[in-house]
Amino acid sequence: MSRPPVPVVSIAELEDFTDREFAQVHQDGKVYKITELGPGFLTLRLDANERHLRMGGTVSGPALFTLADYCAYYVILAHIGLKGLSVTTSFHIDFMRKAAPGPIFCTCTLLKLGQRLVVVSVAIRDKDEELIAQGSCTYSVPPG
Amino acid sequence: MSRPPVPVVSIAELEDFTDREFAQVHQDGKVYKITELGPGFLTLRLDANERHLRMGGTVSGPALFTLADYCAYYVILAHIGLKGLSVTTSFHIDFMRKAAPGPIFCTCTLLKLGQRLVVVSVAIRDKDEELIAQGSCTYSVPPG
Amino acid sequence: MSRPPVPVVSIAELEDFTDREFAQVHQDGKVYKITELGPGFLTLRLDANERHLRMGGTVSGPALFTLADYCAYYVILAHIGLKGLSVTTSFHIDFMRKAAPGPIFCTCTLLKLGQRLVVVSVAIRDKDEELIAQGSCTYSVPPG
Amino acid sequence: MSRPPVPVVSIAELEDFTDREFAQVHQDGKVYKITELGPGFLTLRLDANERHLRMGGTVSGPALFTLADYCAYYVILAHIGLKGLSVTTSFHIDFMRKAAPGPIFCTCTLLKLGQRLVVVSVAIRDKDEELIAQGSCTYSVPPG
Repeated sequence: MSRPPVPVVSIAELEDFTDREFAQVHQDGKVYKITELGPGFLTLRLDANERHLRMGGTVSGPALFTLADYCAYYVILAHIGLKGLSVTTSFHIDFMRKAAPGPIFCTCTLLKLGQRLVVVSVAIRDKDEELIAQGSCTYSVPPG
Repeated sequence: MSRPPVPVVSIAELEDFTDREFAQVHQDGKVYKITELGPGFLTLRLDANERHLRMGGTVSGPALFTLADYCAYYVILAHIGLKGLSVTTSFHIDFMRKAAPGPIFCTCTLLKLGQRLVVVSVAIRDKDEELIAQGSCTYSVPPG
Repeated sequence: MSRPPVPVVSIAELEDFTDREFAQVHQDGKVYKITELGPGFLTLRLDANERHLRMGGTVSGPALFTLADYCAYYVILAHIGLKGLSVTTSFHIDFMRKAAPGPIFCTCTLLKLGQRLVVVSVAIRDKDEELIAQGSCTYSVPPG
Repeated sequence: MSRPPVPVVSIAELEDFTDREFAQVHQDGKVYKITELGPGFLTLRLDANERHLRMGGTVSGPALFTLADYCAYYVILAHIGLKGLSVTTSFHIDFMRKAAPGPIFCTCTLLKLGQRLVVVSVAIRDKDEELIAQGSCTYSVPPG
């Protein structure tokens, strides 16, 4: 089996880049935090608050999708460098369990890091490591 | 071909229900508006502002996903009545074109309205009717 | 709304190309037939026989997937010409109703015909025009 | 993290059931073989031959989809018992690499084994354990 790719930027560099270029991530306060970065993967934590709930008091689908999208975006940047605008071309997610407010962890793993197309696997777990949602997304990487 | 189902509540009733039970929809101001409701379908408009943009100034994936999720939720409520908590079980979306800030229209159509499972088709278009994204989602309807 | 693309080859040319280059399509007899080709879309009919059934006597998931994949492949060839090897990069399909043996119709529509990525919408209907399955697939088009 | 479910039937029982009730699996010869069954997962091998190739000599999308569908079906039967007709409700798959003829391995893992809905994760690898395709599918389990 081929080896996973190695990150080319650090967590600190990703956070610095976000603060400068992608401040929308923090529009509801600092609710996202990168907790791990390794070969081919990155974990992003969401501290889910009132804003992220749906009726019934569980974390909403859009909040989970947003977490997954940011995490996928970070794992790509971490491995191709802080450049360019990769564009989401498709997203698929299955929701398995309801998530209570509190910390939620999304791990994105690079399944394919092509010149043109990147495929990312997504797994969202709660603090007890129960799987809340799983999915995949593809990104088109601009030339150059 | 079998006929599409007929709505059992009005737009006004859906909006009233939202204001009472699902106020998170309006947490960023009244950016969503139901513009059409007919047999088996509903159209929801998002007036995309700064908050909904990503780098490059186009409407973000999470903003489009959130629009789709709300629209799907509304079309189901409109046809099964203002009750219960249907739960998203899966979501798939393909992004075709970038969306500029301004009005964006999502139309959700019921493909299947089963006792247990509802399948909804999603199409997001800009004000020139160009297709921005298309997808589908499934919801589990609780018994009773 | 922008106009759909216009086919650049005829049904006869597609069938001739298939007989020469893609004979696997007919490995179970001539069960597939292109019934319509227009701007941005193509309809392929499957005459489902014993081979295509699953337990319970309905048309199997793999048979429906195969029909969709061939149809998507044809609609792309019809619009980019009989060249190159476009590669399926993702496939999503929702199954709504069981399909009885007999004629089944798949219509594939081009949602996006990019230089690099093609997105195709898939709808499978029975002879009464009831929707059996709906989905989408993406293809990577090789350069040149 | 909660424990994965334990199989309730053996590989031999699954194969015997297939021979009796689901003979279509073997309509092209005995190309499928269950190679592993454990808590929450099952691996099915396809010995891909001429029949499973597409233009260019790589294993076709439909052949990979069929392998995944059979494998998902087996892992469900293995854990709920040899009864009833679970029905595929949706299928999503991303194709990452081309597959050469020869042995191909699909592992399906139960992500959720609900009373009504089963979610299965799918990973297809070649004999060098390179990931060829990854996806997920959902099945509706009939009551009783």
